[in-house]
Amino acid sequence: MTKPLDFQSVIMSLQKFWADQGCLIWQPYYSQIGAGTMNPGTFLRVLGPEPWNVAYVEPSIRPDDGRYGENPNRFQQHYQFQVILKPDPGNPQEIYLKSLEAIGIDPREHDIRFVEDNWQQPALGAWGLGWEVWLDGQEITQFTYFQQAGGLVIDPVAVEITYGLERITMPLQRVNHFREMRWNDSFTDGDINYQGEVEHSKYYFEVADVDRMRQLYALYEKEAEEALKNGLVLPAYDYILKCSHTFNILDTRGAVGVTERQALFGRMREMANRVSVAYVAQRQALEFPFLREEVAVPVTRKIEQTSVHYPSTPADFLLEIGTEELPAADLQSALEQITARVPALLDELRLPHGEVSVLGTPRRLVVIVEKLAASQEEKETVVKGPPASRAYDAAGQPTRAAEGFAQGKGLSVSNLQSREIDGGVYLVAVVKETCRPAHEVLREALPGLVEGIRFDKSMRWNHTNVPFSRPVRWLLALHDGGEITFEFAGLTAGRITQGLRFHEPSSQVVNSLAEYRAYLAGQGILLDPHERKDAIREQVSRLSTEVGGKADIDEGLLDEVNQLVEAPTALRGKFDPSHLELPADVLISVMKKHQRYFPVIDAQSNLLPYFIAVRNGDSQGLDVVTDGNEQVIRARFSDAQFFIKEDLKHKLEDLLGRLGTLTFQYKLGSMLDKSRRVTALVEPLADELGLTADEKSTTLRAAVLSKADLVSHMVVEMTSLQGVMGRYYALHSGETQAVADAIREHYLPRFTGDSLPASKPGLVVGIADRPDSLVGLFAAGLAPTGTKDPFAQRRAAIGLIQLLSDFNIDFDLGRWMTVAAANLPLEASEQNLKACAEFITGRQRNNLIEQGYRYDVVDAVLAEQQNNPAGALNAVKELSDWVAREDWNTILPAYGRCVRITRDQKETCTVDPQLFENPSEKALYEDLLRVEDSQRKDGSIAAVLEAFLPMIPAVNAFFDSVLVMAEDVSVRNNRLGLLQRIAALTAGAADLSRLEGF
Amino acid sequence: MTKPLDFQSVIMSLQKFWADQGCLIWQPYYSQIGAGTMNPGTFLRVLGPEPWNVAYVEPSIRPDDGRYGENPNRFQQHYQFQVILKPDPGNPQEIYLKSLEAIGIDPREHDIRFVEDNWQQPALGAWGLGWEVWLDGQEITQFTYFQQAGGLVIDPVAVEITYGLERITMPLQRVNHFREMRWNDSFTDGDINYQGEVEHSKYYFEVADVDRMRQLYALYEKEAEEALKNGLVLPAYDYILKCSHTFNILDTRGAVGVTERQALFGRMREMANRVSVAYVAQRQALEFPFLREEVAVPVTRKIEQTSVHYPSTPADFLLEIGTEELPAADLQSALEQITARVPALLDELRLPHGEVSVLGTPRRLVVIVEKLAASQEEKETVVKGPPASRAYDAAGQPTRAAEGFAQGKGLSVSNLQSREIDGGVYLVAVVKETCRPAHEVLREALPGLVEGIRFDKSMRWNHTNVPFSRPVRWLLALHDGGEITFEFAGLTAGRITQGLRFHEPSSQVVNSLAEYRAYLAGQGILLDPHERKDAIREQVSRLSTEVGGKADIDEGLLDEVNQLVEAPTALRGKFDPSHLELPADVLISVMKKHQRYFPVIDAQSNLLPYFIAVRNGDSQGLDVVTDGNEQVIRARFSDAQFFIKEDLKHKLEDLLGRLGTLTFQYKLGSMLDKSRRVTALVEPLADELGLTADEKSTTLRAAVLSKADLVSHMVVEMTSLQGVMGRYYALHSGETQAVADAIREHYLPRFTGDSLPASKPGLVVGIADRPDSLVGLFAAGLAPTGTKDPFAQRRAAIGLIQLLSDFNIDFDLGRWMTVAAANLPLEASEQNLKACAEFITGRQRNNLIEQGYRYDVVDAVLAEQQNNPAGALNAVKELSDWVAREDWNTILPAYGRCVRITRDQKETCTVDPQLFENPSEKALYEDLLRVEDSQRKDGSIAAVLEAFLPMIPAVNAFFDSVLVMAEDVSVRNNRLGLLQRIAALTAGAADLSRLEGF
Repeated sequence: MTKPLDFQSVIMSLQKFWADQGCLIWQPYYSQIGAGTMNPGTFLRVLGPEPWNVAYVEPSIRPDDGRYGENPNRFQQHYQFQVILKPDPGNPQEIYLKSLEAIGIDPREHDIRFVEDNWQQPALGAWGLGWEVWLDGQEITQFTYFQQAGGLVIDPVAVEITYGLERITMPLQRVNHFREMRWNDSFTDGDINYQGEVEHSKYYFEVADVDRMRQLYALYEKEAEEALKNGLVLPAYDYILKCSHTFNILDTRGAVGVTERQALFGRMREMANRVSVAYVAQRQALEFPFLREEVAVPVTRKIEQTSVHYPSTPADFLLEIGTEELPAADLQSALEQITARVPALLDELRLPHGEVSVLGTPRRLVVIVEKLAASQEEKETVVKGPPASRAYDAAGQPTRAAEGFAQGKGLSVSNLQSREIDGGVYLVAVVKETCRPAHEVLREALPGLVEGIRFDKSMRWNHTNVPFSRPVRWLLALHDGGEITFEFAGLTAGRITQGLRFHEPSSQVVNSLAEYRAYLAGQGILLDPHERKDAIREQVSRLSTEVGGKADIDEGLLDEVNQLVEAPTALRGKFDPSHLELPADVLISVMKKHQRYFPVIDAQSNLLPYFIAVRNGDSQGLDVVTDGNEQVIRARFSDAQFFIKEDLKHKLEDLLGRLGTLTFQYKLGSMLDKSRRVTALVEPLADELGLTADEKSTTLRAAVLSKADLVSHMVVEMTSLQGVMGRYYALHSGETQAVADAIREHYLPRFTGDSLPASKPGLVVGIADRPDSLVGLFAAGLAPTGTKDPFAQRRAAIGLIQLLSDFNIDFDLGRWMTVAAANLPLEASEQNLKACAEFITGRQRNNLIEQGYRYDVVDAVLAEQQNNPAGALNAVKELSDWVAREDWNTILPAYGRCVRITRDQKETCTVDPQLFENPSEKALYEDLLRVEDSQRKDGSIAAVLEAFLPMIPAVNAFFDSVLVMAEDVSVRNNRLGLLQRIAALTAGAADLSRLEGF
Repeated sequence: MTKPLDFQSVIMSLQKFWADQGCLIWQPYYSQIGAGTMNPGTFLRVLGPEPWNVAYVEPSIRPDDGRYGENPNRFQQHYQFQVILKPDPGNPQEIYLKSLEAIGIDPREHDIRFVEDNWQQPALGAWGLGWEVWLDGQEITQFTYFQQAGGLVIDPVAVEITYGLERITMPLQRVNHFREMRWNDSFTDGDINYQGEVEHSKYYFEVADVDRMRQLYALYEKEAEEALKNGLVLPAYDYILKCSHTFNILDTRGAVGVTERQALFGRMREMANRVSVAYVAQRQALEFPFLREEVAVPVTRKIEQTSVHYPSTPADFLLEIGTEELPAADLQSALEQITARVPALLDELRLPHGEVSVLGTPRRLVVIVEKLAASQEEKETVVKGPPASRAYDAAGQPTRAAEGFAQGKGLSVSNLQSREIDGGVYLVAVVKETCRPAHEVLREALPGLVEGIRFDKSMRWNHTNVPFSRPVRWLLALHDGGEITFEFAGLTAGRITQGLRFHEPSSQVVNSLAEYRAYLAGQGILLDPHERKDAIREQVSRLSTEVGGKADIDEGLLDEVNQLVEAPTALRGKFDPSHLELPADVLISVMKKHQRYFPVIDAQSNLLPYFIAVRNGDSQGLDVVTDGNEQVIRARFSDAQFFIKEDLKHKLEDLLGRLGTLTFQYKLGSMLDKSRRVTALVEPLADELGLTADEKSTTLRAAVLSKADLVSHMVVEMTSLQGVMGRYYALHSGETQAVADAIREHYLPRFTGDSLPASKPGLVVGIADRPDSLVGLFAAGLAPTGTKDPFAQRRAAIGLIQLLSDFNIDFDLGRWMTVAAANLPLEASEQNLKACAEFITGRQRNNLIEQGYRYDVVDAVLAEQQNNPAGALNAVKELSDWVAREDWNTILPAYGRCVRITRDQKETCTVDPQLFENPSEKALYEDLLRVEDSQRKDGSIAAVLEAFLPMIPAVNAFFDSVLVMAEDVSVRNNRLGLLQRIAALTAGAADLSRLEGF
């Protein structure tokens, strides 16, 4: 075994490798930037139509990744190696993998994976699709097809490869901590960079002056503006980068709230966009000079010629769409779409067939059709013409009508036939569609099949600009032994498939389905997702049992893992049991979310110090892979431990001071201001909701502390742990269990289907929190627009509705919003309040309709109960039942008669029994009084209808007996008054006039 | 011929080369820094005792080098390759030259020179001695022995090698402009960097907002302070770097005056010092961990053993001190010191010798002594003892005295001799000193000879820490054929010499002076400076004549050039005649100062488009060398042309606006404020000095415009052209010739021996300018202290004195300083004015004493005439003549008698002739009245003395005849009054009591 490369040799080797690939070797940027992407050598050069191939080191600065030098592989400065290939050379993954070999990584000894990662940099209006490349569970490279930068579409697409140099070199050198990584013969990384990590971490987390940083930000922004005004693209861009770094410092100091973040991102994005537009204009004015450069010729796969053999009888059909690694969800979705589409397509093509199987792995979507016909089924189309009786004249000659019809079909009259249709006899044209060979029609149809697959996010990669989830790199289509040479995305389908990465032979010519299956099986690829999933489940369980535990198999995670591998091999890693002292939520979160590991638990559901990972490939080098994964999880846990240790240095309450520096929204003050408003709102709410004195004091305390964890290091790092950490820190700060729980619970529910608060204090704080946000943001002019909802107001509204509904709390939203508004530091106008109420109602309406309730039922109820979500939900349920009744078509008309005639009446008329002229009036009136006197639940439409039901005969009798609109005004008004009171019975419950059929 | 390397390959080759030399390969810094030195990988790592070898690229940002992409090789961003070797490996120049070969430079085909350059970075308290390395006249590398950084001594010394990568690569690729330099196969430097040059230049020169830059500077400074307070070395250093870049932008915008510059530098230096101290303390606390590293073993030269052959009869002696390239002035000075010292040394050593020749080139100091004795001359020392008469007793036995004396000399009495001394006979001891061989005494003495050479600036380079002008790398000392193996600076002298760089054989064992001479001659080295100088003069003249011109041979330049080469070969280059449109002063300045070229002029002294350069070496590759030099001068002239073109876009007057942004000193306002004050002062001065109306209006206009050129690009670039450019721009702006000349002249004299204003307006503006500066700076609390005179107030004072003296202008300095003070924006106290006046007087005193006047004469005059430099000078001259007179010892005593007796008299007594008692009183009184009535030039001491001379007999008679201190008070006072009036004759001319002998 040769000595592994030292760090500087890794860099020099990569420079050499990529220079040999034709890349320009560029230099790190002279500004503190978070990633090589922000170097103008990437950010600007990828814009416009010009080709650009470049590679360079970028020491990247990310203040909030500072760990005081303690974390093995996370630092405020890490070294990236950045490569841009534009346009796509056709095989960038393969070139990249060769580069790993160039620095001494034998891929067969490791688990190298392309794990979905959709990169975006909102501050710069940039995004792309691609992967994190994992080496034994460690993210070593970001591989992205760059789709947009500075808000502009990138065309041609640029391939961006960003190596994390330490994370590659450390496993190469088999060291566990950056401090031990050899930089050259004399020095380790620790020798050179440890002190910097300690100092810069301290600076970014503790020392940087927030006020001065804000001043710097403002000055940079103005200077960028000035440069842009003068048409200076690069100087302006430099200042945007400085804004970005300064923002990062502010963020690390915990001084940026969600809403301020949005605002600052928006401003940076806007500037980045202006810079980008100006850059492209500049290049255009120069006539895109790099276009003179020869564009790298896309790699074309040489297809070996074989004798083409199409079947003459039904035979197996095989289609394989070979891709770069598809994201799990996209793979799932594609398989479903193909499953739905293929049979229909074959029918449309008139190709009879046997069983259709749709299978797939991250790198291939496969359709197998058994016994597919060799050619199309015959099909006649019969077109009806004139009646036979009028087709021939007396002389037996075709009439003008017959000739015209035949001519229209391109036939002569002699080709027409007579058929009996619907009891008459007509001339008909029988058109026989041709029966073409299957391979011909498939060649035409298959592009549409592939193109028709839709993804949530799709990308472009080459000159064809066709969209797909990830690049399609090969196509295989065989009918029996014959190739179906259809074309898609610049490729022509053939008979060559690709194997499991790093396994030999890496590609194979296959002449039949059997050969195909044999080749894949030989490489351990499990094509059938169900089979693969079973295999994983079995392996995971077995490995858990071996250590006396059981795997905590989350089905969603299992599905995801299943879609990430072609040839699964599970492995068990362990971690230091001391990490178990961390909150289980944190450990699980890290294992599942970050690493896609299955946690292992004991019989009491306590975590054991193991994890199960699933590697793509066989067991070669499994010890190395396991070791690598263990290193990763150690670093991840150290990270969390670091945060929590830091956080536990203070009581939760002590964080309130810092909370004052975390802006909620600049017009609405800090998060501290917000939590004070929530506390103020909680007080009367607790009374209204009938909390005990104990509960009330718990509620108040929880409200005070509810947001404190937002400035804790752990939550700054993993926002999803908000509340979880608040609860944990509360307990460690001597708060009561009830207060701690309420802090956690006030965030619930976080999504549809999430659990709900278990305690009243949690519920009440949660109810108070949301109107404050909603009304406040509306008052600040930040209502969501279109699809934009940066402050997650939809989620707040839905959460509020769900809480009130699920706990069945009668609640006057309008009143509480007014109370909330009174606490705000700015005035909320009537219009703001109205708009906000309508927004919330709109969410409930959508929600109810999505749940399957009839829109008219929903609208009927919300017309009367928009301020009371719980009441509304109940009423919708009740009314849904009522409108489903068989007798509904007698009930609604009866009630409707009362309403319709009074609807346009402006005055309210009083009823005077003395003026009754007809017994039916009196009978109806008596029924009415009974109903009015009955005890009904407020807002219950069922109660109203239940009470109304017995009145129906009286109603009908009334209308049969009297003319409401009597000549005598007093009689008329008396009758109208009676009906008005009937119509008013549904007030506050539902407006039945909105129902269909009313 | 192989294809020359592209730019990125040059970089990668250098990385590889230096990695192979054991250097750590580091990365560019993430901040805009002006040089790789400022990267903490150099600036901090060179501190303390730890070894450190590192190499990296540094894209260096220097705003004021921006040329909008027009200049061939000057840019706001240039690429440096930085190398640090600490400690000195012993042969860093040789390693460096190998690195040039590694990137394809054949040194035999080029002129590679080490040209003195004493690098300093005052803002960071850093300096070092070394060279610019020139490749065919182009500076390609800065090579420095780093002596200090952050105000701390660097020990061990670090060798710093900074390559200018473009300037190396361009000649390699034989391209003339950076835009054509190939970066890789596909792109040129212009493709990638041209647009950036255009934009950043525009940004730095035109767009950057001065006010915002000042705010940024202040914020950075505070943040650095905060970081330092928290012990954070690296973050603090980052902010110092940001201060530095921001300062550079301010400077480029022309917003920093001389005095503000000093203040800002001072603050940055102070911060840099604190950072450095903190860094070293930090390393010390870690126990200097890199000391564990093996220190590179210094290269030891293997000395071939030869049989040692010392002479037995007088023989030639040869000493060669081999050095790295000595600066011209140091070489000159060393030769002079050795010339003075060697004969004395040989005498001290009692080594008789023939002719001593002291010769040398930049790389060797050589002493040749003909017929040097093989061993010391005998020497007797005779020590006088007791008189012979008391040496032996009556019995002829030695007395105790004799024995004691003999014992004291370590002799027996029998060894004593009798000698007649001064007429008596004494016992004496004759001590014979031993006659040791020459090689022995020389081995002991030669270290002292070398060590005794003193330089203005000397440096350390290795562990011995001995100081020398530049490192001594070999020593050769032969007496006849025998080595004198003395030791110095870690070297042992031997018989090996080094040849001309790049010539074979590169070193040689020599066994005699003849072999030595033959070897050097074989390489073309002219050891004798006179011979070399003649050769250069002849070559330069011949090349000039060939093109019909003659060389403008400045003797100072010739001397300098002579000291820069070992084997001179002159070459003639040409430049585009269009450059001749530039002011000749500018062209000459560039040729002489920057390039050490001899300009060529025609018969009318007009410049011709040629230059003569002198290359070190023979004529191999002379065309390449010429071509390279032509490229350099083209770039230099383009640079000047660029500036002047920019400047000529506006009238000189238009620059006044910008002048308002150029701070003179923050308490004293801008340079515009200053020029307004000068204008205000000029008005009454012109009247006082009797200018005509015409002259006066010229003066006023010149005063208004006097400082405008300070914000012109050309002067910002080459401060020495201030006034020169002002004159030029004035003429191009339609000002009169007289105004233009006065602008130029007001700066004169700039140094001792400089020319003086030719016109009265120039004179008057010059006189007005200086008191404003002097009084203003004193009032601002910025009087020069010790050796510190950052604002050149000494020069201002001396200039003022010279102007007033040379033009013989009677001038009341005190009054005019008060007038100047009245214009200031701050109050000048009496104390300030007094201190300022004393400062000016002090300068004149020094000046006069340096000119050879007796200090007592000077003091006598200045005591009475400190406010009038011209008068003082005249009086000093006169008094000097008088004190030199033979009769002076009668004149001074006579006058002195009158003064001394009245000196302590507090009251002034009146003279009443009625009270005279003795004729001598009356006679004296009459003489006095005659003298008092005589017309004498104010301040002329000669006139006073001339008048006093005839009084002397009367004075003497008076004192002989009367007792001044008579009993009668009225008589006494009358006599004292008479003497007081005599004493008062010299008032306003000189205080003769200060003379020696008074």
